[in-house]
Amino acid sequence: MNQDFIHTYVSVDCVVFGFDHDNRLNILLVQRYIDDVPADKQRKLPGSLIFSNEDVDDAAHRVLHELTGIKKMVLKQFKCFADPLRASNQSDIKWMGTEYMHNIDRIITVAYLSLCKIDQKINSTKYETVDWHPIDQVPALPFDHNKIINESLTEIRRWIETDFSIIFELLPKKFTIRQLYQLYSALSEKQIDIKNFHKKISSFNYIIPLEEIEKNVSHRAARYYKFDAKIYKKNNTKLIK
Amino acid sequence: MNQDFIHTYVSVDCVVFGFDHDNRLNILLVQRYIDDVPADKQRKLPGSLIFSNEDVDDAAHRVLHELTGIKKMVLKQFKCFADPLRASNQSDIKWMGTEYMHNIDRIITVAYLSLCKIDQKINSTKYETVDWHPIDQVPALPFDHNKIINESLTEIRRWIETDFSIIFELLPKKFTIRQLYQLYSALSEKQIDIKNFHKKISSFNYIIPLEEIEKNVSHRAARYYKFDAKIYKKNNTKLIK
Repeated sequence: MNQDFIHTYVSVDCVVFGFDHDNRLNILLVQRYIDDVPADKQRKLPGSLIFSNEDVDDAAHRVLHELTGIKKMVLKQFKCFADPLRASNQSDIKWMGTEYMHNIDRIITVAYLSLCKIDQKINSTKYETVDWHPIDQVPALPFDHNKIINESLTEIRRWIETDFSIIFELLPKKFTIRQLYQLYSALSEKQIDIKNFHKKISSFNYIIPLEEIEKNVSHRAARYYKFDAKIYKKNNTKLIK
Repeated sequence: MNQDFIHTYVSVDCVVFGFDHDNRLNILLVQRYIDDVPADKQRKLPGSLIFSNEDVDDAAHRVLHELTGIKKMVLKQFKCFADPLRASNQSDIKWMGTEYMHNIDRIITVAYLSLCKIDQKINSTKYETVDWHPIDQVPALPFDHNKIINESLTEIRRWIETDFSIIFELLPKKFTIRQLYQLYSALSEKQIDIKNFHKKISSFNYIIPLEEIEKNVSHRAARYYKFDAKIYKKNNTKLIK
């Protein structure tokens, strides 16, 4: 019995989240080049085939570095996507032939989440075009990249519920409680009660008030806060202590 | 430029947890057969190469069904293991050649967690030997299976902190608070204060007392409880409501 086992290429794809000044979640997309495909349909998630001597996590770190120029980024593997038909679209097959010089019939991908302060300068060593797209304005993407992005949203919510500290990766180093509330609301599926939010946040001793308030704002100037990772780590985040 | 991209077989491996009457976490291992290898070194995690027309989640469901005969089991994909050297041991290569009739040089695996009530009857359609091993008495296993098991322990802890309801998959339908405490303690890395535990548990309205107490026990007979999934789902488990 010689069964028909999969023998395949493996890639990594990265969903990098940022939080913009209009309180929207954004993700990074890159440009890909194919003839005959309109420019606005040429976006994709940053990703790469993994090399034969490479582990998947290393490949994801490589992709993020090629994408942003940033050396250390928070990163979380979240799911392997392996639908047998995920790369069966003709334009995707054609693009892979040009990009990788390989004739690729099936490809599975390991998807990663990453978080980036949106003001951080992006210096890609690989891509000409890397830009932020609000999560509700992502165009139709090749392969199953739209599905990966949808599932990454569920994953980032779960991640923040499990480890609240990672929310601060998306905020500036000093932030107002309003910014934190708006980010948490953008990440939640439902409306968050602002009173409950304030009450809960004020019980978190790792969110430290600073001796500094906003300047040049039209509303009442709010105090800035910072996140203290050391105090956070000391807290026991277990359900039952 | 024709880079050396990975082109590989892909497998799934399943870590199935059970909780025994001595309050120990156990996992299911199966026997593999290779000449020249002592019988006690022939255990492995249940797993399989995935077929060319199969998605990874479907492959994991297939493996669990072949393993236990149980149709629906709770299952969670948790990590892709892709160390380039994870299948480079000669006896592992030899075993794969016999098992799969393929000459396999590199293989990546997608690891799954599953949970099983330990009294459930195991009716494997594939394996002659399927048995429970206490987690602290797992022998040296092939490939990186010991590493996968270690990481699955971290993952099951995180899973229960995120979704407490899954702990009840490991308990009998009616259970005592002592059993729940012992299971939670076995899953935790550190000692759990029993008073805090009781206090917290009594605030969970989805743990329902029954009109039934233990029989034929040497200690004081304790009340049985059941888990109510519907009430649990109604509860908002979010960090901030």
